[in-house]
Amino acid sequence: MAAERLVVIGGDAAGMSAASQARRLKGPGALEIVAFERGHFTSYSACGIPYWVGGDVEARDDLIARTPEEHRERDIDLRMRTEVTELDVAGQRVKALDRESGKTYWTGFDKLVIATGARPVRPALPGMDAAGVHGVQTLDDGQALLDSLDALRSEGPRRAVVVGAGYIGVEMAEAMLKRGFEVTVLNRGEQPMATLDADMGRLVHEALDGLGITTVNGAAVTKILTGPDGRVTEVATDAGTYPADVVVLGIGVEPETGLARAAGLPVGPHGGLLTDLAMRVVGHDNIWAGGDCVEVLDLVAGRTRHVALGTHANKHGQVIGSNIGGGYGTFPGVVGTAVSKVCDLEIARTGLREKDARAVGLRYVTATIESTQRAGYYPGAKPMTVKMIAELRTGRLLGVQIVGREGSAKRVDVAAVALTAGMTVEQMTALDLGYAPPFSPVWDPVLVAARKTVAAVRGAGS
Amino acid sequence: MAAERLVVIGGDAAGMSAASQARRLKGPGALEIVAFERGHFTSYSACGIPYWVGGDVEARDDLIARTPEEHRERDIDLRMRTEVTELDVAGQRVKALDRESGKTYWTGFDKLVIATGARPVRPALPGMDAAGVHGVQTLDDGQALLDSLDALRSEGPRRAVVVGAGYIGVEMAEAMLKRGFEVTVLNRGEQPMATLDADMGRLVHEALDGLGITTVNGAAVTKILTGPDGRVTEVATDAGTYPADVVVLGIGVEPETGLARAAGLPVGPHGGLLTDLAMRVVGHDNIWAGGDCVEVLDLVAGRTRHVALGTHANKHGQVIGSNIGGGYGTFPGVVGTAVSKVCDLEIARTGLREKDARAVGLRYVTATIESTQRAGYYPGAKPMTVKMIAELRTGRLLGVQIVGREGSAKRVDVAAVALTAGMTVEQMTALDLGYAPPFSPVWDPVLVAARKTVAAVRGAGS
Repeated sequence: MAAERLVVIGGDAAGMSAASQARRLKGPGALEIVAFERGHFTSYSACGIPYWVGGDVEARDDLIARTPEEHRERDIDLRMRTEVTELDVAGQRVKALDRESGKTYWTGFDKLVIATGARPVRPALPGMDAAGVHGVQTLDDGQALLDSLDALRSEGPRRAVVVGAGYIGVEMAEAMLKRGFEVTVLNRGEQPMATLDADMGRLVHEALDGLGITTVNGAAVTKILTGPDGRVTEVATDAGTYPADVVVLGIGVEPETGLARAAGLPVGPHGGLLTDLAMRVVGHDNIWAGGDCVEVLDLVAGRTRHVALGTHANKHGQVIGSNIGGGYGTFPGVVGTAVSKVCDLEIARTGLREKDARAVGLRYVTATIESTQRAGYYPGAKPMTVKMIAELRTGRLLGVQIVGREGSAKRVDVAAVALTAGMTVEQMTALDLGYAPPFSPVWDPVLVAARKTVAAVRGAGS
Repeated sequence: MAAERLVVIGGDAAGMSAASQARRLKGPGALEIVAFERGHFTSYSACGIPYWVGGDVEARDDLIARTPEEHRERDIDLRMRTEVTELDVAGQRVKALDRESGKTYWTGFDKLVIATGARPVRPALPGMDAAGVHGVQTLDDGQALLDSLDALRSEGPRRAVVVGAGYIGVEMAEAMLKRGFEVTVLNRGEQPMATLDADMGRLVHEALDGLGITTVNGAAVTKILTGPDGRVTEVATDAGTYPADVVVLGIGVEPETGLARAAGLPVGPHGGLLTDLAMRVVGHDNIWAGGDCVEVLDLVAGRTRHVALGTHANKHGQVIGSNIGGGYGTFPGVVGTAVSKVCDLEIARTGLREKDARAVGLRYVTATIESTQRAGYYPGAKPMTVKMIAELRTGRLLGVQIVGREGSAKRVDVAAVALTAGMTVEQMTALDLGYAPPFSPVWDPVLVAARKTVAAVRGAGS
């Protein structure tokens, strides 16, 4: 039997995890693997870019988990700087453009993996392409930003404006602070970290103030102003104008699905490809998709959402590669867990925010508690705020948000598992969580929050 | 209607939590509360004693959550230095001995809470009562140890021998190290931390070596040798003799149930009182028991065990107080979670060890992985070892053990929730745990362990 050919579009986490796992299960005699990557790098940690820019991570290559050469040593025919420009589903072939030579050619496939990732949202505003305005989506972006910082005058105050106050925005705010910049974060919304409810976002706002990061809420960017050399000088918003030596865009991403849409593959309400539990594109037995270009089932809301996170992309790749390699795997969905930090401030969330719950027809109660991440008498005990949301009547956990200091964020994992298991907040009050004074008060803050939420469920009656 | 009288025996976590919660729900007009405490203190954190001795916590009173006066302000008739010496179940009365006056008297009850705690295991060996030999069970013990340290000569090396290598032992080893002592831990077993399997205990042993703490395994103490002044000079074991200026006993505790046994109340195989889910003593509708004097259901093993931990004692008290106060609460059981640290070494466990699984007739597979607690490229990334145990065939999670550095131990909570929910390791591979480089590699170590355990389950066949 001739080898089947697997074609992979996209050489980062999902695509190359799929290729690697398929290769682990099937040798080159049974499966030929061709992978196309339009950029210069494979299998790197985009999530690490803020720490490289901020100087915590020394070298760009530290972020690369596996180089093109390493993939090729595993019998993967990896074609770098080669973009797939057309997908012919019926003909089972893709058209590729070699960006170096400019040549195009068709390659047939028996099985296809679409892992085209996401692209940063770049509003079409005047000056967005000016020198000194940078996205931080790819390693190339990060390198361009670092080169741009090197070119700046070193005397006098240096001002950075970060556009967007989501997790990329706040992580880049820390990075620029570490680089010695005065940092202003321009936030279109009511409070930073719109992935939290506004009451918890306010705590982030106050903490950012304390760290010396200025956050301006309700500030939608209208224009980037430039100097005679074409370089950014100011950022104009409907709320005022802010001087800037450099501008970092951290305003989120959307699924990169132009190719798949053009080929008639199904996309969901958030613009991502729709797959089944085995990560096959809906309606197509020989096409898989994973990573930042797909929508995933939100297990709490019962509908799909788009979550661009390396940890999901890696799991998708693992599942896809297992299934293509003759094994078995599924990706049941997410509960929406995210953690981030700004200096010693830690921010975490999982499950639904209040507005998410409302949007899917759930009625709920909330409770917010303040505790400490260690026993109050133990050195380094610091405030930690936990907000918990539970369904009315049933008391089923719907979501948890945490804002605190060192040792706070990863406690959200307890809630992530409880959400996955469909636990009620009453059940959570009995959880046997690790206790010792350096790690927790005798009542873990998550348990304190659960107890208060139980009271809220009971108090809310029917 | 005359007020009912609630009598509470024991003024620490379980007893006073029960009293406080009952008082919250019922005023003094409906419920009279009399509490007896034979010692000098109420509601304190015994778990904090090592950190007070080590100097991390400045003052003894920092460990006291609520003083006798504060309890009395809440209309609790708290009688300090008063020991209950007899319990007349049929007559619904207790006999109390006022240690100050030497007087005894009977007090009747409608409802009774037994919260007599645990007592340290003190083998009856020659010299165990010598000056310089100290337990660390109570605040009085801690104070005596600190006084003893002050009295020591300050010139020359000062040597501490810690007897026992469980969590109290290793925490006290850290404390004595911080006090400037050369520390030797004498461990009767194969490896320190017998709450872990020996393969994980070996990692603790190596790490203790690295911290400058000498651990001697297989060293059962036979005798404490003293000088002409009656003070300890050496500790003799069957494996050799160790010089000691001070000896700390950290060899565990057993339920303090003499009073209850004498009254005919039911105790289990580990010597603890047996209760139902509402924490009522089995067979007695008006007697509750909680804290270190009871056995609790191990939800994984399906049988009772004795776990002396403040976090359980507080939960028991809360449940008991709710039920006595006319509310409703249950304590379903434990999964056996424990976390501890020695300097920057973190140790955690939950669920069953291999021998626990064997003891209850479970067949299992194990997998051990080494990862890092942060992304490998992020500053401060350090090794973290996770051992996972799952049932043969079903793949149900049975236990997790973790040895690592800062940021490792509390990850065991993920497994604690998964155990409570009865998850399989296959289900765990899909858990949506928080990911960002400062908090975790892109595959959280718990997920890596779950994946390897899934492979072990599959590989083990039937």
